[in-house]
Amino acid sequence: MPILVMKFGGTSVADLARIKNAAQKVRAEVENGFNVIVIVSAMSGKTNELVGWVNETSPLFDAREYDAVVSSGENVTAGLMALTLQEMDIPARSWQGWQVPVQTTSAHSAAPIEEIQNDNIMAKFAAGMQVAVVAGFQGISPEGRITTLGRGGSDTTAVAFAAAFDAERCDIYTDVDGVYTTDPRVAPKARKLEKISFEEMLELASLGAKVLQTRSVELAMRYKVKLRVLSSFEDMSDNAGTLVCDEEEIMESNVVSGIAFSRDEAKMTLTSIADRPGMAAAIFGTLSDAGINVDMIIQNISDNGRTDMTFSCPTEQVKRAEEALNASKEHQSLNFEALIADTEVAKISAVGIGMRSQSGVAAKMFNTLSQEGINIKVIATSEIKISVLIDRKYTELAVQALHDAFALEATA
Amino acid sequence: MPILVMKFGGTSVADLARIKNAAQKVRAEVENGFNVIVIVSAMSGKTNELVGWVNETSPLFDAREYDAVVSSGENVTAGLMALTLQEMDIPARSWQGWQVPVQTTSAHSAAPIEEIQNDNIMAKFAAGMQVAVVAGFQGISPEGRITTLGRGGSDTTAVAFAAAFDAERCDIYTDVDGVYTTDPRVAPKARKLEKISFEEMLELASLGAKVLQTRSVELAMRYKVKLRVLSSFEDMSDNAGTLVCDEEEIMESNVVSGIAFSRDEAKMTLTSIADRPGMAAAIFGTLSDAGINVDMIIQNISDNGRTDMTFSCPTEQVKRAEEALNASKEHQSLNFEALIADTEVAKISAVGIGMRSQSGVAAKMFNTLSQEGINIKVIATSEIKISVLIDRKYTELAVQALHDAFALEATA
Repeated sequence: MPILVMKFGGTSVADLARIKNAAQKVRAEVENGFNVIVIVSAMSGKTNELVGWVNETSPLFDAREYDAVVSSGENVTAGLMALTLQEMDIPARSWQGWQVPVQTTSAHSAAPIEEIQNDNIMAKFAAGMQVAVVAGFQGISPEGRITTLGRGGSDTTAVAFAAAFDAERCDIYTDVDGVYTTDPRVAPKARKLEKISFEEMLELASLGAKVLQTRSVELAMRYKVKLRVLSSFEDMSDNAGTLVCDEEEIMESNVVSGIAFSRDEAKMTLTSIADRPGMAAAIFGTLSDAGINVDMIIQNISDNGRTDMTFSCPTEQVKRAEEALNASKEHQSLNFEALIADTEVAKISAVGIGMRSQSGVAAKMFNTLSQEGINIKVIATSEIKISVLIDRKYTELAVQALHDAFALEATA
Repeated sequence: MPILVMKFGGTSVADLARIKNAAQKVRAEVENGFNVIVIVSAMSGKTNELVGWVNETSPLFDAREYDAVVSSGENVTAGLMALTLQEMDIPARSWQGWQVPVQTTSAHSAAPIEEIQNDNIMAKFAAGMQVAVVAGFQGISPEGRITTLGRGGSDTTAVAFAAAFDAERCDIYTDVDGVYTTDPRVAPKARKLEKISFEEMLELASLGAKVLQTRSVELAMRYKVKLRVLSSFEDMSDNAGTLVCDEEEIMESNVVSGIAFSRDEAKMTLTSIADRPGMAAAIFGTLSDAGINVDMIIQNISDNGRTDMTFSCPTEQVKRAEEALNASKEHQSLNFEALIADTEVAKISAVGIGMRSQSGVAAKMFNTLSQEGINIKVIATSEIKISVLIDRKYTELAVQALHDAFALEATA
């Protein structure tokens, strides 16, 4: 029988009623002829409670004990989901990570999955079991300790199971009904995409569209796992969601598939630094050591052997970045005149595979913003993405204007 | 290094502050030169929450899933306890049942322990670890599923570890500071016992002194594990608790060690039943099938081939017992004239190893009650115990009078 992976996040299993609702969706897929592997998160709020206890007990905690404590939330949901399915007369049982086993490295709290052994569960499917409920977000290290996979771990578990079991598809049930051309709260004309390529989804995910974690999209792309994002709060019939798939499966690529934005950006500029080899390495080595997530980097042209370096980072990390850079300056390893932080910016990005073959996208983007009187502070481009930093107060205006300019409200 | 097992129940690890308090007691024993195995329960209230969810999800639940869900509470405490000890610079780590492993049968929800492998933890002790924190109440079945041990499971885990690791002693930390000659709330003269024999403790436990579960005392007796009951809420110095040990270690046995009582008893009498072989089997087979916990059984002398049969059972089971017996009567397999239930009785017991060699204990007990004008309704005796049923309203009077009569307030 074909295998389907279905993943339910924390809000989709927040209480017994929602677990039952999720189980009904599983039943529907069993009736469609699938053997189903259900990946569950902890009931929403539970993981935070456990993490809170660990932090209060031991601020610099032993990650192995953190994992042993925090993984318990998923185990509870897995057992309850199996019981709920059994009440519906569906043969089901729960698995914890170590029982499958989901083998990971020993990098506790953020352990990559090394291998998922499928013989155990396959044997049960062969013996008539219809649903395997697996606690997401966890595995077992070579030393036999419990590991957790870190942020987005349950999505990653789901995709890894889909790959290991050669599943027909991996359905990620969440609290939104798919991937949109942009955030509907900002641009009411935003349209749900029927399909999107892995590459575009990766850019959108890393740009703040929080539907799927980057890591799970990367994994899906590598193993060509068809991912579907859909709502656990809607009826199956109206609930096609968005399919994230290989580029080839999308007949007609849009030039631009979506407009992403992030209000959580700050722009920092180091003025008048020496324009010599090793300076960039010194600056970004310092920032990396301080744990700063640098995003865009722009170096202006040199003038008399001095240049300016601008980068962006999350607003909350500005203070830490300033401290690290100023400390480096005191130790003489870095030399700059001034450090200017602008915490009132937003990043707006147009993402689309069609850009590769279409020219004029950047020009159209800049022209649109200019017509709205929006000044562009920084530009960065990649193969399928153009990003700009602008004044934060223009975020909505820019997103709506670009959404219109690239005609994203029209059906594909 | 000698090994000590310390067990902390739910109220002793109810929150992070209490876990810290418990950890300080562990540290004191590490400083005393012990390698310590700490057995923990779930934080109080957590197991009930999990059991509630399971019951609501599936009233006739699959016990394997019940165990997978309910065992998670102990795992959380074990990790938090290990972290708390690490914060005190004590090398510690947590173990879940399957990691030790604690091998049990497949009798989910009430699984007896088959074997505890000690090489894993012993190797860690040899490598410098000082404390192994083990999640109590759980194990792993031959099929690799998680099991729980049922009522009193954490006490049983503690005693089983003490046996498997040949521990110096097994200290059970709880919310009382030891075993008393009787309940101090009923008889203010009650005295804490310094030592008590396994046999006496078994009688007291099964008679309603809720300090230790019967099962763990039985196990301790079988493997000659020295058990100590003491309070987790008192300072170590004033906290000697009560040692439960082999009879030989108690120099001078008291004739009577304690007066136990239970107000939760009912007396039921079947009148005029046929006095022929098989009648007792029919009655108590019927009650056993209905899940009734029959305690005392008394058969009067026969009169013209008819006799009366009296037994006691918990008050809450009276209705069920009546239904079962009346149903049996209708099916003609049982024949009795009337079924008389007296739900206003209490059971009072005198327990003591010295009874074996001393005569006159029963006479003294009956005489004492008679002097107080208390009528005895039923008498039952064993080698080290005399129990009577009396009117419930005389409970305190009887306990105090017997406590005085056997001079239990005096220091041993």
